[in-house]
Amino acid sequence: MIIVMSRQATDSQLDAVVERVKEIGLRPEISRGEDRAVIGVIGGNAYAYREAFSHLPAIQEIVQITKPFKLGSREFQPHDTVVDVAGVPIGGDNVVVMAGPCSVEGEEMLLKTAAFVAARGARILRGGAFKPRTSPYSFQGLGEAGLRMLARAREVTGLRIVSEVVTPADVELLVRYADMLQVGTRNMQNYALLQEVGRAGKPVLLKRGMSSTVEEWLLAAEYILSQGNRDVVLCERGIRTFESSTRFTLDLNSVPLVRELSHLPVVVDPSQGTGKWSLVRPMSLAAVAAGAQGLIVEVHPRPDEALSDGAQSLDFQSFERLMRDVERLMAAMAPAPA
Amino acid sequence: MIIVMSRQATDSQLDAVVERVKEIGLRPEISRGEDRAVIGVIGGNAYAYREAFSHLPAIQEIVQITKPFKLGSREFQPHDTVVDVAGVPIGGDNVVVMAGPCSVEGEEMLLKTAAFVAARGARILRGGAFKPRTSPYSFQGLGEAGLRMLARAREVTGLRIVSEVVTPADVELLVRYADMLQVGTRNMQNYALLQEVGRAGKPVLLKRGMSSTVEEWLLAAEYILSQGNRDVVLCERGIRTFESSTRFTLDLNSVPLVRELSHLPVVVDPSQGTGKWSLVRPMSLAAVAAGAQGLIVEVHPRPDEALSDGAQSLDFQSFERLMRDVERLMAAMAPAPA
Amino acid sequence: MIIVMSRQATDSQLDAVVERVKEIGLRPEISRGEDRAVIGVIGGNAYAYREAFSHLPAIQEIVQITKPFKLGSREFQPHDTVVDVAGVPIGGDNVVVMAGPCSVEGEEMLLKTAAFVAARGARILRGGAFKPRTSPYSFQGLGEAGLRMLARAREVTGLRIVSEVVTPADVELLVRYADMLQVGTRNMQNYALLQEVGRAGKPVLLKRGMSSTVEEWLLAAEYILSQGNRDVVLCERGIRTFESSTRFTLDLNSVPLVRELSHLPVVVDPSQGTGKWSLVRPMSLAAVAAGAQGLIVEVHPRPDEALSDGAQSLDFQSFERLMRDVERLMAAMAPAPA
Amino acid sequence: MIIVMSRQATDSQLDAVVERVKEIGLRPEISRGEDRAVIGVIGGNAYAYREAFSHLPAIQEIVQITKPFKLGSREFQPHDTVVDVAGVPIGGDNVVVMAGPCSVEGEEMLLKTAAFVAARGARILRGGAFKPRTSPYSFQGLGEAGLRMLARAREVTGLRIVSEVVTPADVELLVRYADMLQVGTRNMQNYALLQEVGRAGKPVLLKRGMSSTVEEWLLAAEYILSQGNRDVVLCERGIRTFESSTRFTLDLNSVPLVRELSHLPVVVDPSQGTGKWSLVRPMSLAAVAAGAQGLIVEVHPRPDEALSDGAQSLDFQSFERLMRDVERLMAAMAPAPA
Repeated sequence: MIIVMSRQATDSQLDAVVERVKEIGLRPEISRGEDRAVIGVIGGNAYAYREAFSHLPAIQEIVQITKPFKLGSREFQPHDTVVDVAGVPIGGDNVVVMAGPCSVEGEEMLLKTAAFVAARGARILRGGAFKPRTSPYSFQGLGEAGLRMLARAREVTGLRIVSEVVTPADVELLVRYADMLQVGTRNMQNYALLQEVGRAGKPVLLKRGMSSTVEEWLLAAEYILSQGNRDVVLCERGIRTFESSTRFTLDLNSVPLVRELSHLPVVVDPSQGTGKWSLVRPMSLAAVAAGAQGLIVEVHPRPDEALSDGAQSLDFQSFERLMRDVERLMAAMAPAPA
Repeated sequence: MIIVMSRQATDSQLDAVVERVKEIGLRPEISRGEDRAVIGVIGGNAYAYREAFSHLPAIQEIVQITKPFKLGSREFQPHDTVVDVAGVPIGGDNVVVMAGPCSVEGEEMLLKTAAFVAARGARILRGGAFKPRTSPYSFQGLGEAGLRMLARAREVTGLRIVSEVVTPADVELLVRYADMLQVGTRNMQNYALLQEVGRAGKPVLLKRGMSSTVEEWLLAAEYILSQGNRDVVLCERGIRTFESSTRFTLDLNSVPLVRELSHLPVVVDPSQGTGKWSLVRPMSLAAVAAGAQGLIVEVHPRPDEALSDGAQSLDFQSFERLMRDVERLMAAMAPAPA
Repeated sequence: MIIVMSRQATDSQLDAVVERVKEIGLRPEISRGEDRAVIGVIGGNAYAYREAFSHLPAIQEIVQITKPFKLGSREFQPHDTVVDVAGVPIGGDNVVVMAGPCSVEGEEMLLKTAAFVAARGARILRGGAFKPRTSPYSFQGLGEAGLRMLARAREVTGLRIVSEVVTPADVELLVRYADMLQVGTRNMQNYALLQEVGRAGKPVLLKRGMSSTVEEWLLAAEYILSQGNRDVVLCERGIRTFESSTRFTLDLNSVPLVRELSHLPVVVDPSQGTGKWSLVRPMSLAAVAAGAQGLIVEVHPRPDEALSDGAQSLDFQSFERLMRDVERLMAAMAPAPA
Repeated sequence: MIIVMSRQATDSQLDAVVERVKEIGLRPEISRGEDRAVIGVIGGNAYAYREAFSHLPAIQEIVQITKPFKLGSREFQPHDTVVDVAGVPIGGDNVVVMAGPCSVEGEEMLLKTAAFVAARGARILRGGAFKPRTSPYSFQGLGEAGLRMLARAREVTGLRIVSEVVTPADVELLVRYADMLQVGTRNMQNYALLQEVGRAGKPVLLKRGMSSTVEEWLLAAEYILSQGNRDVVLCERGIRTFESSTRFTLDLNSVPLVRELSHLPVVVDPSQGTGKWSLVRPMSLAAVAAGAQGLIVEVHPRPDEALSDGAQSLDFQSFERLMRDVERLMAAMAPAPA
């Protein structure tokens, strides 16, 4: 952290700041220029104490120097993390496709969907058993019955399972059934939940909060990582903007940016990120081209009968076309003679 | 819900839509114009089924007619709800001031602050014992020890207590100490928490999600109301926008708008909503002038020593001036000979 | 400007940065800490050259120290500017009300409106003769015929006239008829227009761009000020956010913030800023309570027959009530024994 | 347009609405359901008159049915427009690369850059002679001298020229030198300028306003198209959101969406849309994968010496790599056996 004094600061105002730095247990390093004085503040996590200076007079600016996240940063670990989801690796140069219905609605439709997406190359089955819905009057998911259906689909198809957990009390239940726990966009800053999944011993798919900056997203990952769980997969799923012709604005800028800042794998959800099934294929391709290490796509045998998010679900034919195009794209992008 | 067919829709496409309406158990009411056909869909909560139509061909538009929230709406209850917080009424023509430190940091500072704000006219003491913080490395609150200090301050000053609950497992604990439970901005869509506070038997202060529309906020209230708890106070606390010179953009438009749409009381948090103590007084006055039925303000005996949010906390002198100005304003606004 | 080197920076990387500073003609001031080196860069407008450093290696951060606007800043002029609009002062402790129809639609309705608002205390008549409309198929205004009607209304009522100019070629025409030129939200960064009104010799009402930060708004004012025209009145009129239940989000935070940063007067447009006539009265009062030095309000004798923006226009009765409430508020706020 | 009456509407309230429809010269088509009445309003551009109904009682909702843009819509013209830029086609299945410096800074650097990008496959040279800058104290471009340098570069390399026009008075000048006129993001709603370029007889590159919806962008195109100029190329260049770690949020959702809604070609500016050169390559690939029909990329021989936007400019080596990757991607995407 660097504290920049204003040009008019008096010596005693400078002293007051230096004094405060020492009180907190940090080390000040003063450099007086002709123009103004600047105080470097050295010590672990100095920026967390910036508010201790907010009411002192004659401070022009307080500047954060080091990134506030650690365990997730590239500086902490230069090479890509590869997360092992019960034998399926996410990270590095792979592109893993996760597919399935928005919510688990019944065993038959689930098995049918699972068999289809597995045959076309998906490795992980998605499906919500607990659904966070904006209205209390909407379908809220089948709960444990849904989880049992997912487990049955795993048995039959060999797909791994990812499913959402919405409250700390359910983590134990999810751990019994799923191979990867999903934390949804509305819970990205539910810190009690983040800490609980940090202790769960299973990989976590952490969706970006719909109004969270990339930095806040990496700090949310930090909550999980700092509990000892290093298997975090980040998922860009669109942010909220003024544009209303799509459900969210899929922020693909975040994909190469996160890959610069962090060693964690990053995947993309083009179904949530667009809200329109006709945009899912082009935006899936865009995500992979931008460097995403996976996709999570909503697929439903009859999207117009879905109990949730039908408008953004692919039917089987569209999913098949998507997988063909993704494969062609990956073949072209792959061993780039950089 | 109204389904507008496209101009080119064939009879069989129209029939398919009508068929689907009946399958769901709703009632269609067709009106064929020269230009196009329109289908009124009648039945409780029809709009929740809109996705059942999303993949049918020849539909131009699906229009929601009734508001998706019920118990909280003015149509459901025309007169203002007045929430009773252990004898202190919020709602109607009152303007209640809640004040106190962002987080409870120690008994002495808390008692000192409580005594001061009580003497200047505040009725409710705010103070966080459990703090949801963006970084896992920031101060997270004193937990139950903090709650005990709040209870002690209530004994001494007679102020009521509002404090934040961050996870369903803590609701019972909070209920033992606080007079009103606060659900923070990051948990506005934590539905497990909303349902739990809906069963807690204590009034709830529901902060607006920093990226939530007014409609989503009222739907979050609906989660609490539908559990049988009718004592919900809404709190505007700023939304996230592109503007970065203030911490959030305090959306005062929402105050008169919520008062049109809902019978629930609405209060404003100018500390969070600006992030700058020098803006707290003018924006408090603006909130009251816009029709807010209360304020929740951060006050700290020495803001520059606060462990959280010092930059937006008032010191005693500024709080005193604020209360004087609020009183003058209320006197002027009060019995308007409309 | 301060350049913070990364911890790993080598001496030759530091030298390269210092060299570049000198090349540009600025003066470097190096301070080497144990932890890292920091280079103060001294010289007028140094931050404008920050991109000259963007590709140099081993730079951690480049920090802007001084505000990029000058003539409009409080540092440049500590006391409030009071703009003289043909004898009507805007700024200081006054609250001036500007009122009138969104667009001038005909002489009779204009004279009727002007007479009414003048009798209730408005000092300036607003009315668009040139309208920037989102669609080319919407009503675009009456042009010079509209300006002549405004001039006639001034003669009859004594009100001053403010009207929008949308292109540099029309500035001369507007100058002949209006007492104050309005630059609308869509033209806030139309720099050719800003420079032209900067040379026009008439006061300018500069609306905030609907997606402009406060800093960009003050920089737009700087374009006018730097042409020699010091009579700039800033107008907050709402910003674009994700909230769709109001037309824009009126950012009243900007009012006290601008008054801290700048000596220019700031007024508020609650009609544009809400898009709903029923919110205009409460938000007008909120604006004045926040410190606005004026209001600009759309009034129409029969809002439901307006050719533009009828939904946000007050009728005569509502305007009368607004003026009564504003006066009571001002009386209460006025000579605050600070 | 459809007007939905509220459930409680009386017959005389319904009659008042019908009366108003007729007064305006539109045709009402009433359908009375059990639940409520709905009035279809038929006639060209009916929605433009929606405000005529805004103050009438007992209206629940007014719904727009037809899209407000016409000439640019897919309904108006089903096949892709291919714009001819002095012999270089933009649109259809082509991907055209436009490259060059942000601003023209001198002849030598311009010729060097032009020669390099031409050799690697760019077809059009970009370069600003008139620069709209946020601060009046920043470099504003070389003006006509810059245009002459661009013309010279065209002679030498055969590249076509695109350059920005910032005010109607300059259109004639630009037409003399450039093959395509660019309207920048800050001028997307400068209607006087749009109309002038609509009469200029040269193709127009219309950048999306940084806070404009896709609908507003297509309406801005409509201003140009309705003047008789059908050669409009749309350019997505990022929108303003709360995310501050990139300069803008590149909204690639808009690419497939615009291609659904409109027949006009759409290209992407990854330099403006990210603000960081290291993100330009991945986001260029993403844009092409999403269906963009061109890229416009900032390239500078020494980005760290650029007078504007150096941080987002590619150097020659990075541009070379980008072109190699774009070509591989296009080869893979091309003749998709759909």
